[in-house]
Amino acid sequence: MKIQIRPYYHIAQYYETDQMGIIHNSNYFRWFEECRTDFMNQLGLSYGEMEKQGVRAVVLASYCEYKQPMRYEDQAQITAKITHFSGYKMTVEYEIINSLSGVLCVSGYTRHGLLLSQMKPVRLEREFPQIYQILNNQCEPTE
Amino acid sequence: MKIQIRPYYHIAQYYETDQMGIIHNSNYFRWFEECRTDFMNQLGLSYGEMEKQGVRAVVLASYCEYKQPMRYEDQAQITAKITHFSGYKMTVEYEIINSLSGVLCVSGYTRHGLLLSQMKPVRLEREFPQIYQILNNQCEPTE
Amino acid sequence: MKIQIRPYYHIAQYYETDQMGIIHNSNYFRWFEECRTDFMNQLGLSYGEMEKQGVRAVVLASYCEYKQPMRYEDQAQITAKITHFSGYKMTVEYEIINSLSGVLCVSGYTRHGLLLSQMKPVRLEREFPQIYQILNNQCEPTE
Amino acid sequence: MKIQIRPYYHIAQYYETDQMGIIHNSNYFRWFEECRTDFMNQLGLSYGEMEKQGVRAVVLASYCEYKQPMRYEDQAQITAKITHFSGYKMTVEYEIINSLSGVLCVSGYTRHGLLLSQMKPVRLEREFPQIYQILNNQCEPTE
Repeated sequence: MKIQIRPYYHIAQYYETDQMGIIHNSNYFRWFEECRTDFMNQLGLSYGEMEKQGVRAVVLASYCEYKQPMRYEDQAQITAKITHFSGYKMTVEYEIINSLSGVLCVSGYTRHGLLLSQMKPVRLEREFPQIYQILNNQCEPTE
Repeated sequence: MKIQIRPYYHIAQYYETDQMGIIHNSNYFRWFEECRTDFMNQLGLSYGEMEKQGVRAVVLASYCEYKQPMRYEDQAQITAKITHFSGYKMTVEYEIINSLSGVLCVSGYTRHGLLLSQMKPVRLEREFPQIYQILNNQCEPTE
Repeated sequence: MKIQIRPYYHIAQYYETDQMGIIHNSNYFRWFEECRTDFMNQLGLSYGEMEKQGVRAVVLASYCEYKQPMRYEDQAQITAKITHFSGYKMTVEYEIINSLSGVLCVSGYTRHGLLLSQMKPVRLEREFPQIYQILNNQCEPTE
Repeated sequence: MKIQIRPYYHIAQYYETDQMGIIHNSNYFRWFEECRTDFMNQLGLSYGEMEKQGVRAVVLASYCEYKQPMRYEDQAQITAKITHFSGYKMTVEYEIINSLSGVLCVSGYTRHGLLLSQMKPVRLEREFPQIYQILNNQCEPTE
């Protein structure tokens, strides 16, 4: 059964603005990561704990589409969902909405490889069946 | 005639590493931007000057593929090329090579919309014909 | 009368770590700023609004002392107080405590000059008496 | 004998600007670090190598004074010197000059503790006499 995930909130900071007066495009990848950490915690999977047990979710690719700028002090509501999961690869999709206006400002995804600390692929299903189960349950493929 | 562009070099910094001991994935988008600024300068187009004249190249989308990690004190050799240019949209592709090993570590692209400061699309060809000419000449579509 | 200020909370992020496995020292200045934005909001002074009205609080100096490292997923409890205020200059002091352990990890300050947008000093008392009053009331000089 | 150190150069990047149209204050601490890495390399001491040998130079405190703003595409000329060295503590002072105008924009310092990887103080003089010698020679106390 899927766990109902609460959105993650981030207030846009002054140090994240650029001289165009908007949030610099590189920061949204950091907000995706903040949301992902929170998402994993809501699934009962602390990423910090996973690393200590020897599992890493390295980023293979990341993509971001900028639809509307966000500005200093805007509140971003960020949602994540797993849209692909194979036991050794995972795709997470994100949407960033301006909480006040409800406008979709940014969307994107990150693709991850699940590795043992020694940078070898891990077969989660066999080696960490509990983590496998949680992530697999949570996967919602997009058509 | 295309201008021969020299690669851009960036030394990977300590503050760009993360606790995995590698350069954090979000930084490569910043290195792409550093390279793009240098690329534009080599074309005789200071982006700072363009902004003062009222032209902005906002980022519409950005994508990055992580093939091999880079580490503290590695020297990155970054190349850019324009692979699509229409007068109001532009795509720039990047490759990041570890100078020492010659290994391709990161590739990606950014897509840009060319706007007037008031956030209206600009028809470069008519309004800034010289900028149009330079960018159009430099475009090398990938097949 | 002084307004009772709630602490500001920040979860330490992965992208804020470095290869020593701790939060990189440069980030604490950004956390000070996050806390300051929140502090001003609690005083009823949105810094974004102040900028729109033409008042800027530029940073003249900043100082940070690192007592204990913080790590990924630690929750930082950050408090700010104004310790000097003269109408055109202001000092804010900060303390960062690890919420879980209660240990003081970081302390520091920022000194600010209050300017009009045109980079001229502003006499807050005369030109923005309401802002002056709030900040002056909030000032708690350290002996 | 002191080694003659060349200044370090950094081009101010777009992602380092903020909505005030200047380089955000937090970035100068990162430029100090870039300069320090380069400074150590010029002394024949790769900080990366030192870490592999088990010596860490953790930051105990950092200070920055902002005299004049720097802007996008400005070239910063950054100089460092060791002004205090005791074998287990070290202070490095920095100056950032706008290359074009020659104006001093930023000054500051960082204080470091020299530690073994296990976070114990190291007596450089005994344990790493060669590193001790180089740093000690380079020290220029300010009066």
